[in-house]
Order: sequence, then structure tokens, then C-alpha cells
Amino acid sequence: MASMPRFTLTIEYDGTPYAGFQAQGDRPTVQTALEAAIHRLSGETLRVRCAGRTDTGVHATGQVIHVDLTRDWPPSTIRDALNAHLRDRDEPIAVLEARLAPEGFDARFSATRRHYLYRIVDRRPSLALDRHRAWHCQRPLDVAAMNAGAAMLLGHHDFTTFRAAACQSKSPEKTLDHLEATRTPDGIAVTCHARSFLHSQVRSMVGALRWCGEGRWTPQDVRAALDARDRNRCPPLAPPHGLYLTRVDY
Amino acid sequence: MASMPRFTLTIEYDGTPYAGFQAQGDRPTVQTALEAAIHRLSGETLRVRCAGRTDTGVHATGQVIHVDLTRDWPPSTIRDALNAHLRDRDEPIAVLEARLAPEGFDARFSATRRHYLYRIVDRRPSLALDRHRAWHCQRPLDVAAMNAGAAMLLGHHDFTTFRAAACQSKSPEKTLDHLEATRTPDGIAVTCHARSFLHSQVRSMVGALRWCGEGRWTPQDVRAALDARDRNRCPPLAPPHGLYLTRVDY
Repeated sequence: MASMPRFTLTIEYDGTPYAGFQAQGDRPTVQTALEAAIHRLSGETLRVRCAGRTDTGVHATGQVIHVDLTRDWPPSTIRDALNAHLRDRDEPIAVLEARLAPEGFDARFSATRRHYLYRIVDRRPSLALDRHRAWHCQRPLDVAAMNAGAAMLLGHHDFTTFRAAACQSKSPEKTLDHLEATRTPDGIAVTCHARSFLHSQVRSMVGALRWCGEGRWTPQDVRAALDARDRNRCPPLAPPHGLYLTRVDY
Repeated sequence: MASMPRFTLTIEYDGTPYAGFQAQGDRPTVQTALEAAIHRLSGETLRVRCAGRTDTGVHATGQVIHVDLTRDWPPSTIRDALNAHLRDRDEPIAVLEARLAPEGFDARFSATRRHYLYRIVDRRPSLALDRHRAWHCQRPLDVAAMNAGAAMLLGHHDFTTFRAAACQSKSPEKTLDHLEATRTPDGIAVTCHARSFLHSQVRSMVGALRWCGEGRWTPQDVRAALDARDRNRCPPLAPPHGLYLTRVDY
């Protein structure tokens, strides 16, 4: 079994129809759909492992998974065959790339950096084309104020305030390397990256940045909430459908 | 009745769940959804008229309609109330702007120019997030070759080759002012504008540009097909879900 070739796949998906990445009983998940496609390819019931578990409704344009197959298929065959099976089942999941994994590679534990994008559209009218793709904020947001707030979160901190109650990470300490809001033709793009994140950390931080953008919180309020290490000090979370896992570095 | 105030609304919609703009019996259409929302606002059963009828699955980010209401509502009330009613019914339609129309205004007949965007993603893997938002072309397309082909279609021509058999326009002659493909971070954006278009003209032209981009057609082949004035010479149409009505000028 030690000689089973490990493959790494880069995956894109629309999170709307899924109860997140991870398999959960008979609810539709990205993992279940991928494992079903792999079963149709190889006849094997295999488990995949991902770099970053995404919640219900969260999207990915650069999720990474690994899987151990018993046969040494050409990577392009794996990519094309899985895409054909996923398309047949009308699953909005695409395999962008398949590669033979380097020795000792693990999609989760070998990752050195995760990149996320959070999309906001700040306008009064509802969203039509972007309704499952971005957070609709009816009040206009001040991007400079959002970035002043974001600066308070950069670096190594105890992120207890910005962590879901259900978070299973042993430590609440993380190092945030990048968090920035940019005005785009489509709205506001908040990008961030770090070695790893706590559960709901990105959505919690974006919730705080919205309050900064509305003028409801100053950077000092962000700092005080962080220092309080108290989940009750976190503003309402940004909803999952604006969040995208865009890249994983190894 | 002559004193009923006419309002003009700029509309965005995801065309995926609709059998096009125009009301057709009890099939879901954009027009039916809008007229139902207007009925909930004003209690009146009114007809709306649009600048450009879009087909099944075609999107809009800047469709324009007009409607005659019996009450002189503040335009922002019309916008917000219609958006609330559309949201309640889970219709992916948003009213971006409402304005009192100038004297003699007609959304269809006063329009001087219609702008469309056609989105293509040319890559081997399937589309996940863009699957109802762009045309998936598995072969890479040469944008310069597409533009060399597009140049043959600019100006005043008999567009019989690029017109649906069902087209009801009296004349097949139109003046095409702009048709250009641009490489974007997301794929290829084909933009075009003209005073007006024939039925399926944009999708027919984009079908021809794909053949140019694949190296299957030269600019001379585009010219010969145009000159033939023969619908059978048209390459396969680009599918509706890549097309967006983006703006209407008056």
C-alpha cells in the first residue's frame, strides 16, 4: 500500500448547493461528490483530504486536495475523467489541475499559506447576478477606513474574538500576513492570507471590517475587541456566500 | 390616461431561471416577474416594455424598461419597493435605478444604442462558478484572430447569415459600430454595440469569432459567409448563458 501513487488536484467549486467541503452523512458535500467521481473513475472507494475545509455556501477557485490511487494514471486523464463524471452529475465542481504529488506531500499538513478572497457589493439595490457570490451591504463602505481597521489585525495575535465557538484548533493564536480591502469595478474585494486560519476567522474579520467601513467602529475598536479575547465582542459574521478559497501555497 | 407618469427602470437579472424577458403564457419570464412586483406595489396590472428582448438564459446588467403608473411615486420608493417584492419571491432581478421618464420616452423606440458583453472561458477544465455565466470553449482561442474576423463585420451590412430564422425584423440590414474581443483575467470578453441588432445576431457573430479564434476560419471566410446572405453559412451559435445586455443609450 505504501507504493500507491498520491495525486494532488486543484479544484474550483460553486459552494451554493453544498453543505461545505467535508462529508457529513448523506448531505451533499464537495468531498462526497469528488469521492463519487473518483469511484466512477477507478472503482475504488477512497478518501480525499483538502487543504482548507470550507463551510456551507463557501466557494473555491483554488482548493487543493490529495488522494491515493492504486493505479498510476496520467494526471491529465485523471483531470479530464473526473471533470466528465462531475459534469454528468451536474456538480458545479471542476478539476483545474492534477499532478503526481511529491514524496511526503499532504494537502493539509504541507500547506504553508492559504489565500482567501471575500467579495462585498455595497449598493442599495439587491444583487441579481451576484446574489450567491458576494455579500450585499446596503450602506456604502469606506475602503480606507476598512484598511485602517484591518491593520490592527495583522501579525501574531490571540484571535479568540474572531473564532467560531465550534473551532477545534488547539490554540487561538495565529499569524495574519495580509488583510486588505480594494475597490473593484464589481464592489469591494477583501483579500487575506496566512499560514492557517481559525474556524470562521475570515468571516469574523470581514464582519469587523464592515463595521469599520460604515464608520461604526474605529481601528481602536478593532484593537480593543481583539485584545478582549471574547467571542461576544465580534460583530455579526460576514455570510459564507461571499467567501472564496483562492490559492494554497506549499 | 395621458397624464399617467411614465417611469424608466434600469434592471439587472440572472437569466438562468427565465424563459427570456418577454411574457409567454405561464412560463417564468423577467417581464412576468416584474409585472407581478409592480402589481404588489400599486395594485395595478400593467405592462412593461423593454429596450431589448433577451432570450432564455441571457443575462442583463443594464436592461431598460418603462412602465406607466397611475400614481406619481418617488422614484426611489419604486426602486426599493420593487426590489423588496422581487427579493420576497426569490427572483434574481434587481432594479438598479428608477427615474421619471422624459416626455415621449419609449424604452424600445427611443433607444439609440444597445451594448452587449459576451463572456467566453477558453480552458480545458469544466466551469464551476461560471457554468451559467460564460461559454466554455475547450480549445484555446487566439484573440487577435478573433478581432481580425470581427473587423469584417463592422459597418453597414445585410446580416442575413447572422440572423435567426425566426427573426421578425423587416430588414436584415444593420450597422454594427463595435465588435471586439479582449483577454481578461477571467477569460475573453467580447463587447459589441449598435443602434439595434437582429434576433440572435450577437450569438451568431460570437459563434463565427470562435471559429476564427480556433484557426478554423480566416477573416476572408467571415467575409464570404456575410456576403453569401445565407443562414446555413453561419457557424454554431454561441449559447445564451454567456450573453449580457449591459447598457442602453438614449
